[in-house]
Formats: sequence, structure tokens, C-alpha cells
Amino acid sequence: MQEKIKVSIIGSTGYTGAELVRLLLLHPEVEIDRLTSESFAGQRICDVYPSLKCTRVCEPLEVEKISSPFVFVALPHGVSAPVVRKLYDKGLKVVDLSADFRLNDERLYEKWYGITHPEKELLSKAVYGLPELNREKIKKARLVANPGCYPSSVILALAPLLKNDLVEVEGIVVDSKSGVTGAGRSLSLKTHFPEVNENINAYAVTGHRHIPEMEQELTKISGKKMILSFTPHLIPVNRGILSTCYADLKSQLTPRDLVKIYSEFYAGEPFIEILPPGVFPHTREVIWSNRCRIGLDVDVRCGKVKIISVIDNLGKGASGQAVQNMNLMCGFDEKMGLN
Amino acid sequence: MQEKIKVSIIGSTGYTGAELVRLLLLHPEVEIDRLTSESFAGQRICDVYPSLKCTRVCEPLEVEKISSPFVFVALPHGVSAPVVRKLYDKGLKVVDLSADFRLNDERLYEKWYGITHPEKELLSKAVYGLPELNREKIKKARLVANPGCYPSSVILALAPLLKNDLVEVEGIVVDSKSGVTGAGRSLSLKTHFPEVNENINAYAVTGHRHIPEMEQELTKISGKKMILSFTPHLIPVNRGILSTCYADLKSQLTPRDLVKIYSEFYAGEPFIEILPPGVFPHTREVIWSNRCRIGLDVDVRCGKVKIISVIDNLGKGASGQAVQNMNLMCGFDEKMGLN
Amino acid sequence: MQEKIKVSIIGSTGYTGAELVRLLLLHPEVEIDRLTSESFAGQRICDVYPSLKCTRVCEPLEVEKISSPFVFVALPHGVSAPVVRKLYDKGLKVVDLSADFRLNDERLYEKWYGITHPEKELLSKAVYGLPELNREKIKKARLVANPGCYPSSVILALAPLLKNDLVEVEGIVVDSKSGVTGAGRSLSLKTHFPEVNENINAYAVTGHRHIPEMEQELTKISGKKMILSFTPHLIPVNRGILSTCYADLKSQLTPRDLVKIYSEFYAGEPFIEILPPGVFPHTREVIWSNRCRIGLDVDVRCGKVKIISVIDNLGKGASGQAVQNMNLMCGFDEKMGLN
Amino acid sequence: MQEKIKVSIIGSTGYTGAELVRLLLLHPEVEIDRLTSESFAGQRICDVYPSLKCTRVCEPLEVEKISSPFVFVALPHGVSAPVVRKLYDKGLKVVDLSADFRLNDERLYEKWYGITHPEKELLSKAVYGLPELNREKIKKARLVANPGCYPSSVILALAPLLKNDLVEVEGIVVDSKSGVTGAGRSLSLKTHFPEVNENINAYAVTGHRHIPEMEQELTKISGKKMILSFTPHLIPVNRGILSTCYADLKSQLTPRDLVKIYSEFYAGEPFIEILPPGVFPHTREVIWSNRCRIGLDVDVRCGKVKIISVIDNLGKGASGQAVQNMNLMCGFDEKMGLN
Repeated sequence: MQEKIKVSIIGSTGYTGAELVRLLLLHPEVEIDRLTSESFAGQRICDVYPSLKCTRVCEPLEVEKISSPFVFVALPHGVSAPVVRKLYDKGLKVVDLSADFRLNDERLYEKWYGITHPEKELLSKAVYGLPELNREKIKKARLVANPGCYPSSVILALAPLLKNDLVEVEGIVVDSKSGVTGAGRSLSLKTHFPEVNENINAYAVTGHRHIPEMEQELTKISGKKMILSFTPHLIPVNRGILSTCYADLKSQLTPRDLVKIYSEFYAGEPFIEILPPGVFPHTREVIWSNRCRIGLDVDVRCGKVKIISVIDNLGKGASGQAVQNMNLMCGFDEKMGLN
Repeated sequence: MQEKIKVSIIGSTGYTGAELVRLLLLHPEVEIDRLTSESFAGQRICDVYPSLKCTRVCEPLEVEKISSPFVFVALPHGVSAPVVRKLYDKGLKVVDLSADFRLNDERLYEKWYGITHPEKELLSKAVYGLPELNREKIKKARLVANPGCYPSSVILALAPLLKNDLVEVEGIVVDSKSGVTGAGRSLSLKTHFPEVNENINAYAVTGHRHIPEMEQELTKISGKKMILSFTPHLIPVNRGILSTCYADLKSQLTPRDLVKIYSEFYAGEPFIEILPPGVFPHTREVIWSNRCRIGLDVDVRCGKVKIISVIDNLGKGASGQAVQNMNLMCGFDEKMGLN
Repeated sequence: MQEKIKVSIIGSTGYTGAELVRLLLLHPEVEIDRLTSESFAGQRICDVYPSLKCTRVCEPLEVEKISSPFVFVALPHGVSAPVVRKLYDKGLKVVDLSADFRLNDERLYEKWYGITHPEKELLSKAVYGLPELNREKIKKARLVANPGCYPSSVILALAPLLKNDLVEVEGIVVDSKSGVTGAGRSLSLKTHFPEVNENINAYAVTGHRHIPEMEQELTKISGKKMILSFTPHLIPVNRGILSTCYADLKSQLTPRDLVKIYSEFYAGEPFIEILPPGVFPHTREVIWSNRCRIGLDVDVRCGKVKIISVIDNLGKGASGQAVQNMNLMCGFDEKMGLN
Repeated sequence: MQEKIKVSIIGSTGYTGAELVRLLLLHPEVEIDRLTSESFAGQRICDVYPSLKCTRVCEPLEVEKISSPFVFVALPHGVSAPVVRKLYDKGLKVVDLSADFRLNDERLYEKWYGITHPEKELLSKAVYGLPELNREKIKKARLVANPGCYPSSVILALAPLLKNDLVEVEGIVVDSKSGVTGAGRSLSLKTHFPEVNENINAYAVTGHRHIPEMEQELTKISGKKMILSFTPHLIPVNRGILSTCYADLKSQLTPRDLVKIYSEFYAGEPFIEILPPGVFPHTREVIWSNRCRIGLDVDVRCGKVKIISVIDNLGKGASGQAVQNMNLMCGFDEKMGLN
């Protein structure tokens, strides 16, 4: 019997960090090495999250102590990059769940995140970790930038259309609805229970930071510069993202045609499910999983196609996908620990 | 002191009927005459809805017994029209909350509702009851068709743009999110608590019945045939609709320009609030009220304007608006009983 | 026409303060004078709470500026007392919504709140503001201590039994369930949306600060020293408290007997509703109101009576009751502004 | 490699049936044989519950077709017993999730369920399936009556006290709060989303059917006739039960003493967790699991002990426990498939 691979999680007590712990405890080929947390240093992870059966004690981050061959970094953007740099330089494999290595162009990073990128030289080493589009690169990567939650749902929804040149690249509208864990565990009046419960609101209407990431990846797929009109909404549920995408079809295609095209595009993908014409996904069907379900329809009256995708923002939108990336990077079965 | 006007409610134990009772109890110039209900006949309305301080007993509908000068009809479509006909023929003033008299064209009704219109001749007598657009006609009407909940939020959001010819009439996308009372009180697995809670889903993706109503009214405003791409979503809250509308601007306008145009369009309107540039409404700000709040932004990267409106689906989206219409039809202050 | 009475609210941007604003805007005999807030000083209350149609600007508290004849103080305990002192000394009438003047015995205050009472001498001037039990004293009072939310629900539920010596004073169990606005608007992980949503928990199990207040008032009613076993629970709703009380009957009484006793005890009370035997209240029946509904049953198998009461924690549990107290103190109809 | 054991589920499309499917799909030693459903006959279980990755088609129940050596029966009470009888007579091992075989005394069944027991003779063959108390009997049983959700939470909370004769058997109060899946998937106004959401209510106050089951088992433990005062409450969450139990201590014991006693009582139990003094469980810590967490405190002022237990009503309260029973009956590791 082979020895298990040791894995550490930097920033283990946020929602994505804790979800990583949950998933790794179910994974047959890895064992948790170090867990770091500044806010809960000295506490056992099972005391911070009693749903987790793991008595490992969280420690404050000291990068030099991290020696496990695989590391997940779940720190805020800007804070993450210098840590990733050190881990990378030690020869460890890293999946970074922050935004720091998602954008290829440091100027875009500076524009959208408002700070100079702390580790520009490393940008070229990072692979955008959406396995359905980048599987082979991820397998060989030592640094994977795990996609944002909205981009995961949106890129998967639009890729088959753009790859096959079926829609106009201009005028695409993406309207997303997200659960509240997507906003993280930091306290804010915006996520105070009585302010969110029994409420619906749009936010970051004038420009959410996930936009450049979506456009970058979709531009690669379509070969044309993509500009999306994107609006995220906060919904009073814990988990789940539903993205409703609207695009102008270039030719007359039926829902049946499109379902066929999507099914072929994602043939063999273990986590992508294309629904029959006229069937649309609910977030409850995918929460607590790494799955993405996609339904679509053609609005013949105006020539638009509607594509609706659902994921768990902490699953395929963050930690589930991070484990999927780890599986690829370590040569495991891609589905391992994700059922 | 003037005598109060007697008002009856046909179908008083659904959510819109009960909300009418609640509002009329607060209205200084009217008193409730008869309440009808098939499901709860013989029960006091305060036993069906203990939050209502009203001991009136619900009776099964016998149209001949209804003699109050003003009547609200809150019955399902198809069932409503013949009842409205009889009330109208008796000379009573009627606000019909069903869809039966909203569409001017009986063929559209037949197409979207799947039945022959039961009272075609009456269609020409009905006024579409959106006071901000049809105030003078409503004042003189004896039959007002109360708008649907989605159309109320969407028409108010788009009217200033279309009236001023500021956007392309083609390609408009409307993405709406609604609370569950909008689906009514009839039992369905779709509104069973554990199926809705912790879930987000789109529904009626291939064509919601409110579409022809929106397009009819927006066509009147723009003077051009409107076709919208509309998708409603079910959100686990009781009350509230948020509609996010996307349209292509014909010329470069700033959010400030647009806020000015909207503010002028709705100048003096007691229930419409236009937010400053960069501010967007939350449904919690309008639930339990007859207000509609509208925020907007220009996505300069793609030339689209985003307009976000919120209403209470049972307030401005149904019963509140019905009372507003009654106020106009009876010569009361339009705001009476609605604060 | 008589002039309206001016009323100020100290601490107007917490949930109880905002609910006071909402209620006072509906009150025909008062007008809002000053609103204070430290966190939102300089902002209009309608910008902090857009559901409130009031453009009054919040100002930082300067007690010397407060000159309206009536003042509500909605500050944290300990902070409130010195402010109340100054207002009282100026001759203004005050309803204090904090815990500072609820306990007659300063030692109890010190024991449960952990601080020396800042204004002991004023304790004897304060009247405990539960109108159903203290109406005449409240009418003459210049300082009313508004009851806590749990005590309001519990004292009203138990008073008829204790007054009529129907139950053993020992062994009473009170199990309360509360919505999250009861915990206030201050940020805490305990009220962070994803921590509360889809969760149920007990808190302050070893001793909630509302206990001495309940026991003090129930002791006055029963004439015997009361000790309750009380446990509050946090429920993922915004508003509402349901208290389930269990006590040992001294003699065999039927639910019908008890309903009669309760109905007589609360005869003429505008805000108390006693339900028929076998009917039990839901919080949705009273939220957004000043009502308290009480249902009861006898568990003949073990000789216990169960009494279940519901209130809105921000209504009869705080701001509604505060307005009811104001009505009494100012000689208005007790129900004014509370329908 | 040993062959997997085939398992059928009678009544697979209710919430407990679907949870069984979910758990069995994760179980390494069993495979699903037949799934029956009357409402969804002919549909694949993954179309009824898209979160389940299982394409098995549901069939209408024909008992003669069931031949798998192990069967779960998740039918309504009264309907279940005759089916169980036939399966039992065929020599199959059965876990019955209905109430039909939980009560040893057919007269109690008749009294509380209002019907004559359909299969009295089989009552003596059934073992009450609470492994922590009945492990050895369950191992040898061919028919296990799976406990109700409330009894699971309550018996586990009270057993150590009663076994050790630490509390008075009279006067015990149990106040339980449950999520809505506990009410099943059948449609009812009581579980219609807008009626449950933003609401708290007690139900079955005058006598819930789980009472005799709790009392029967607790009587066995204490050796004295137990009568509980039990009140269940409906809480707007999908999953989770929290039971707050109050009992009079016979002698002075500290929380520390009691935690020690509980820890010893449940030593080695894989699914029971006793919390340190002063720590109390939240339902979110156990939902989606088979765990039961218990916290306790002594209310020294009145001599009562409070015990608070949480379970997932579909986990340890139904399907999780059913799988635990299956593991024991089949000789598997008791924890198998339950992590």
C-alpha cells in the first residue's frame, strides 16, 4: 500500500479552507499535514468547525515550516502571492485559491485589484485551473490558480458556444445569483443575518473583480476579445451559484441542436451534466458537490440563447475544483474524493 | 363626516386577497363589505389569517349578492372574467387582479393562456392599471386590469428609456428574481418548503405568461414592437421582486444623465424612487409597501445600461397597486392607505 | 387642531431605534424631533434604512441639545443610565429601552450585568413598563423602563397562573425561541448569515440576563420568590419570539377553564389575544405588530400546563411596547399608532 | 474481493428514502437492488432527485419481486406493517423506518395511531433500533424498528441520567425544535414555503405520536414508568433537530461531574459526542451526518439539569441510523458508509 501524500492548507478557517479540510478528510490518497490560521491559531479545527472530524491544531503561518509536497493557499488576494512565491521556490506544488495568479496580465490585476502585483514573474508559471478546458496543462503545472466562483459557472456555461463560434461575441449578458458563503466569513453589515435574510440585492454592479478573469478565459476560447455585461446578486442561501447567460445566436439552432453540441463538448467530463431541452438546473441539485449542471433554451422570438448553469460556490466554485486540480497535478483519478 | 365606501373582495384568502384585506383595514375611506372564499367559506378571515384584525366571515361566491359599489376580484385567470362581466354589468367598479383583462388582443390571450377569452367584448373597456403611465384613464375607468407583478417591476424600470428613445428596442434582457408568495397559496412541490429553501432556480424559461403584457405596454411607450428576453427566478424569500434589465444605449450617457432623465420622468410620483448613481436597491427596502425603487448604471465597456428595480410582489406588484387604482377610480388621494 | 408632541430618539439606527422611527411616523399625535446615532452621524435615517420615509439627519448625541418633551433612549446598558439621568433631570419624559432601569435591586444589576449601576438613585423613580400589569403607574411615570423582549413574552404568559395561584412556583421551565434582530445590529460571527441560516442553537444556557427581570416581576405577581429555568434559542428568522412555558398545576383544570381564566385576566386588553383550547400561536401572526397571542394546553398525563406565547421581539418585545408606554404617559389612546 | 450485498428500498422517493439512496451509494459493501415508489414509478431516481448519481428506475411496489437479502421499508405507518410481514416471511432482513414496529404494546399503537395494528404477532420479533442502547440485539435481529427522529434525540439525551438514577423520573420536560424535512414530502399548507419561512410554531402540543416511543424506551432504562411533557416546534430550516431537556437532579452534581458520567456512558460510541461543560451544540454541526452531539448544564438556582442534543433528523434521526442498523445486522463495521 502506497503512502499517502501530505497536504497543507494555508488559511484553513475561512469557508473555502474549511471545505478543503472536509474534502481532504474524505480523500483516500492524501493526509492533512499542517493547517494554518491567524484568527484561530492554537485551536483545533474541529473546535472551530465541529462538523469536521479532525483534531489537527491550527497554527499561525510560518512558511518555512511548510514542507508537505502539496499545499493549498486560501488567503486573501495580495496576501497570497508572496506566500505562494516562497512555497513555489521550495519546490512544492501549489493550488492558490486567491485571485493572485488568475490574470495573465499584471496590468489588469493592478486595474481591478488596485495594487501592484507582488510577484509578477510568477504569473507566467501559473495555469488557470479549470480542468475541463486546461486539463493537460494542469497535469504538468506546479502552480495552479484556482478559478473564482462566478467565472467557474460562467466559463463552463459559455465555452461550447464560443468554441464553436455560435454566438455573437458582443452583447453577452451574464446575470448571476450567489449564496452568502461566497462573501466569506469576515464580518460585514452586508452579510449580517437580518440584512440578508428576506432580501435580494445586486452588488458590485459597476464592476465585479471576477469580470477580467471571465473575459480573459473566454477570449482564449473564442479567439476574439470578449466583453461581458455581468451582474452578481446576493441570495439568502448558504451555498450555490446560478448563472443565467444570454447571447445572440448567429444561426438558427434548436435547443436540441445545442444540447447535442454541449454534450459533445463535455463528453466524458465527470463533473459536467448537460440537461435535456426544456429542463433547467436548481442549485440544490449540486450543493455539497463538485458538479456543474447546465440547461439551455433558445428564445426564438428574439434569437437569443439562454444558458443556465449551477454550481456550489464552495465546490466546483472553489474547494471542490481545487481538489480536482490536485488530483490532476498528483496523478490521481480526477474524481477521487469528490463523490 | 362622509360615509365610507363599501368594498368587496372576491377571492379573499389567497395571498393577494389577504393583502387587500390588510390594506383596506388601514384605509380611512373604505370599509370591507363582503369577502368571498371557496376554500375557507364559513370561516372568519381572522381565523384564516390571524394577523388580520377582521372578523368578517368568508362566504362562497354568489355574484348576485355583491352590491358594494367597488369590488376587487382576485380569482385565477379564466375564472375571473365571467365574474367581472357580471359585476361590471351591475354597474360596479372593478379592479381585476387576474390576467384576464390585461391583454388587449384576445388572440395573444389565447396563445399564452391556452384558452379562448371568456369575455372578449369587455376587453376594450378595461384600462391597464399602472397609474404612473395611465393615471388619467384609470381615473375614468370602471374596469381596471391590475398589472402582473413582474410587469409592474419591468415596465417601470424601462419606460423612461423607451419613452425617450434612448435604447435599442431589440436585445433587451430582463432577469427577474421573485419571492415565493408570487406563486400563490396553492400547494405544489415547487413551493414545498424543503424544495425552495436553500435553493435558487429559474422557471418558465421558455416563456412566462407575463411576457406579452410587458411587451404590449412597452410597445405603447416606445412606439415600436418590443420583444424582450425574460427569465424569472424563484428565490427563498416570502416577498419581493428584483428585476435586472439590460439594454443597449443609443448614445453615450452617464449614470448621472440617466438618473436625471428618470427623475424627471417620475417627478411627483409618490411611489417611485430613483436612486443616485452607483446606488442600487434591495428588496427589503420596499417589502410591505407600495413603493418601487430604481437604480441604474452604465456599463461603458459594452455600451449597455443596467436598470435594477425592486417592488413588493404583493404591494406594487399586486394588492398595493390595486388599492392605488381604487384611490384613483374613487377620487381619493392616490396615496391614501398606502403609507 | 392640537399641536403634535415632539419626540426624540437617542440611538436611532439600531434595530429597536429604527423600529421606533417607523412606528412614530405612523403616529398621528407625535412628530420626530431629533434622532441620534454615533455610527451613522450625518446621514439621513432614510439613507441608513431606505424603508423609512423620513429625511431627518442623524446627529451624534449631545444631551444638552435634546429638548423635546418626550425621549426614547435606545442605547446599550451601562451607556444608557447616565444619559437618562440628564434627560430626567431636565424634566423630560423618558422611555428607556435598555436594561438599566428594569431591576429594582442594584445588587441584582451588578450581579447579572457585571458593572456597578451608574445611577442607583434613579432606580426608585422608574416604572417597569408592561402596561397590562402596571398601567396606572406608567400613566404617572416620568421614567419607564421598557421590558426586555423575552420577559415581555414570558411574564404575559405566566401572569394569570401566578396571580390566581394555580401553579407551583417551583419547577417552572421556560423555553424561548427568538429571531435574530433580537441580537441587535452589531456584527458578530454568531449572527453572520451563513452561521445562523440552516441552524438552530441554544445560547446563554447558563444564565441569560433577562432572567432576573422575569423573576422580579413574576415574584411581585405571585407574592412568592420565583426561580425559573430559562433557555433562549436562536432561530433563523428576522423577527418573532415564541416562548413555551411549562408549570405544574396545583389542581385539575381543563384547557377550557384556563382559557376562561386567561380571558378574564386580560379582558379589555387591546394587544393580548387568548386562543381557544387546542389552538396555538405562530410568530408570523404577530410580527410587525404590538400583539401578544397566547395558547395553552393541559398535559393531563403529567399534570403540567403548557403556555405558548408569541410576540414580535421588535414590537411588543421592544419598540411597539415603548410606543404603548408613551401613549399612556402622554394621555393618548393606548392603541394609537399601533394598528 | 467479496461480493456486495444487494439492498432494496421500499418507498425511495420520500425524504428518508432518498437519503437512504444517498448513503447507500457511498457504502462500500452494498449495492442498490430495487427502488420502489408509487408517485414516481417509471422515473429514474436521479430524475426525481438530481443530486443523486444513480440511474436506477423506481418501480411500483410488488412485494413478490423483492428478493434482495436486505430491505429498507420507508412507507407510512399502517401501510408498512403488512409489507414488512411479507418480506420477513420470505426470510429477508428488514429495517422498517415507519412507526409500525416501534411500540411493543399493540394497545399503545392503537391508542396513539388510531388504528388496529395490522401485524401484531410480528411485534415481538422487532428490535428497537437504537444501537447505542440495543447493539447486541440489533446484531441478531431480522427485523429492526428504526426509531423516530425526536425519540432518537431525546432518548440519547436522557439515557445516562436515567440509567444512573440521577434525576427524578417525574416532571421531565422535553422541548424539541425540528427542520421541515421531518414533516415529509407530502404537500400541506403547514409546509408551504411562505407559511413556514419567517415563522416559528409549536405543533401537536396536545400529544405527538413519538411520545409513547420515548417513554417506552426510557422506562426500560430507568426501570420506572416514565411520563414526559414533550412539545415539538417547526423551524424554518431543512434539516436538524435540537432537543432541550429539563430534569430535576436528585443530588448536587456539577456540569463537570455530569459530562464525566455522559462520557463514560457513551465511551467508544462512534457517533455520540459529549461536549465540555459550558459548550452547547448547534444543529449545523451535525446535519448531513449520523452524529449526535450533547451539551449539558446544571441550573443550580433551581436544581435542574438541562441537556441539549442535536441530530440530523434524516441522519441519526432516520436514514443514517437505519444504515448503522444495517451495518450491525450484516456484520459490517458499524461506521461503514457513515463518514
